[in-house]
Amino acid sequence: MSLNNTIGLAVNEPGGSLESLTYELGALGVNEVIIDVDYCGICHSDLSMVDNQWGITQYPLVPGHEVIGKIATVGDGVKHFSPGDSVGLGWHCGYCNECSCCKSGHQNLCAVARPTIVGHHGGFADKVKADANSVVVIPEGIDLKSAGPLMCAGVTVFNPIVQFGVAPTDRVAVIGIGGLGHLAVQFLSAWGCEVTAFTSSETKKTEALSFGAHHTLNSRDPEAIEQAANSFDYLISTVNVKLDWNLYLNSLKPRGTMVFVGATLDPLDLGGMPLIMGQRSIAGSTVGSPAIMDQMLQFAGRHQIRPLIEQFPMSKANEAMEHVRTGKPKYRVVLANN
Amino acid sequence: MSLNNTIGLAVNEPGGSLESLTYELGALGVNEVIIDVDYCGICHSDLSMVDNQWGITQYPLVPGHEVIGKIATVGDGVKHFSPGDSVGLGWHCGYCNECSCCKSGHQNLCAVARPTIVGHHGGFADKVKADANSVVVIPEGIDLKSAGPLMCAGVTVFNPIVQFGVAPTDRVAVIGIGGLGHLAVQFLSAWGCEVTAFTSSETKKTEALSFGAHHTLNSRDPEAIEQAANSFDYLISTVNVKLDWNLYLNSLKPRGTMVFVGATLDPLDLGGMPLIMGQRSIAGSTVGSPAIMDQMLQFAGRHQIRPLIEQFPMSKANEAMEHVRTGKPKYRVVLANN
Repeated sequence: MSLNNTIGLAVNEPGGSLESLTYELGALGVNEVIIDVDYCGICHSDLSMVDNQWGITQYPLVPGHEVIGKIATVGDGVKHFSPGDSVGLGWHCGYCNECSCCKSGHQNLCAVARPTIVGHHGGFADKVKADANSVVVIPEGIDLKSAGPLMCAGVTVFNPIVQFGVAPTDRVAVIGIGGLGHLAVQFLSAWGCEVTAFTSSETKKTEALSFGAHHTLNSRDPEAIEQAANSFDYLISTVNVKLDWNLYLNSLKPRGTMVFVGATLDPLDLGGMPLIMGQRSIAGSTVGSPAIMDQMLQFAGRHQIRPLIEQFPMSKANEAMEHVRTGKPKYRVVLANN
Repeated sequence: MSLNNTIGLAVNEPGGSLESLTYELGALGVNEVIIDVDYCGICHSDLSMVDNQWGITQYPLVPGHEVIGKIATVGDGVKHFSPGDSVGLGWHCGYCNECSCCKSGHQNLCAVARPTIVGHHGGFADKVKADANSVVVIPEGIDLKSAGPLMCAGVTVFNPIVQFGVAPTDRVAVIGIGGLGHLAVQFLSAWGCEVTAFTSSETKKTEALSFGAHHTLNSRDPEAIEQAANSFDYLISTVNVKLDWNLYLNSLKPRGTMVFVGATLDPLDLGGMPLIMGQRSIAGSTVGSPAIMDQMLQFAGRHQIRPLIEQFPMSKANEAMEHVRTGKPKYRVVLANN
């Protein structure tokens, strides 16, 4: 029992199916906790990891990094969690706590931060282990069933709002209304911004308005985007496909910033002159620190921001993964234990 | 006399030589001033304009937008200048004063700001006319003979230091030690930063250290740049040629910013992932507002920051222009009247 046996769902080869796996979480470190998993969201990066798309997968892989659950056990050094506390765990399950990123509260940028599903078994399981300081409290007002996607998708779109200084007076456009985008629109609308949703889907246009967008623009209509020249203080791109970035860049006001949160492997063949002449910026952002996750959850609770999810039982995880692969979920999928 | 005749040096066709031209500055507007030109720096963009490289040149073109002189005449509405005041004029000689950029103190980003040498005769002349609010006072401590290049090159490298929040605790690298770079190193060193100069010239290495750089790196040594991974909070690129930007991007720390102030017409084929994973930014900056020019001049005066110049008499302007064309000046060329 001291090695904390658990049962999870593991993939054993690139593109493989999830199969039941019993494994030991290992001895509990002094600053670690074990979480009883209640819910776990499915993120596109779980698929990328299953397929070893980034070349960093270690098999057997237990995916899942949008964990909602309850503290089961705490290490001797952990003072701020007690068994039964409602908590969440996202992309990282530990940090070095010593580098300048960690010391300055940017643990998500720590070069040796430990991803929850790289060389570590994730949340498609009964239990998951993590460093206590990577785990966050789920505050009042958050619906636990749908909260999982906040832990990765949510903080991914919330972080740039904080890091790049989006103001409630700003005009902000979100490119792509999917798992990330539907949360970005909700956050920005609650933040007080004038929000535009770029989407090519008629259905999503209507839905974007229901999430709080004030305007929509067709992301496949170059003329419409051209007419929006000098319109936005910020653009947040959640897509993982190549678009005509120079066209979007021109839709930024002078001093505007375009932030990429969607992983784009193609080079961004941007013109330098629109950056220079308009004092514009292009930036990137990845997940968020524990402090930002706390802020994000408190803000979401206060403003009733909630991922739209489709729930599957953990026993139907393979089916759920296939559903995510089709890109059709509205807007995220969550696996539920029991 | 009411139309204010003056004599300048004009180019009449792309790539042409400077020839004497007598012209009228026109009636003096209520908020305008006329400046008696004492000195005028030569900037690479004067050459670009002579050659109509940007397709916006109107001939006859009187170049010159790094003007140092004395107020000759002020319009009836001008209260803060008097004849005889030492002043400077840079890239812009007027703004709309009504747009949100102007109203928020970012006049240099005004879409209809009037460049001093586009459809307007510049500083290679006895006199030049400008809106009073585009003209700045030259404070005590500034050497007038060498001050011209501060008006364009100087503010071009000073502006990003302010706009992008460079802190005295930051490590900053300057790419290219030329007219812009030799001023960037001086400003950043006086700002309190740890400064690295990227240059491929052995002579310039030594000179960069004399300008206040703490370190130098060979800009043509990919291995050296690779070894500098995660080193800099800011990179300021002053070059107008294409480098391996991804290599430089990797030399930024997490949350670092690379600012382009040199005009690069080639696309910046940057990878998105180094931006995203390190929460890095790429930005541009162009000249600066009158308020920033004031700050820059006061800072330069307080810290004995001075462009290194070679002086030519206005009568040898063609020779001086050819010297700039060779790229050999150390580090800027200034024309002197009388």
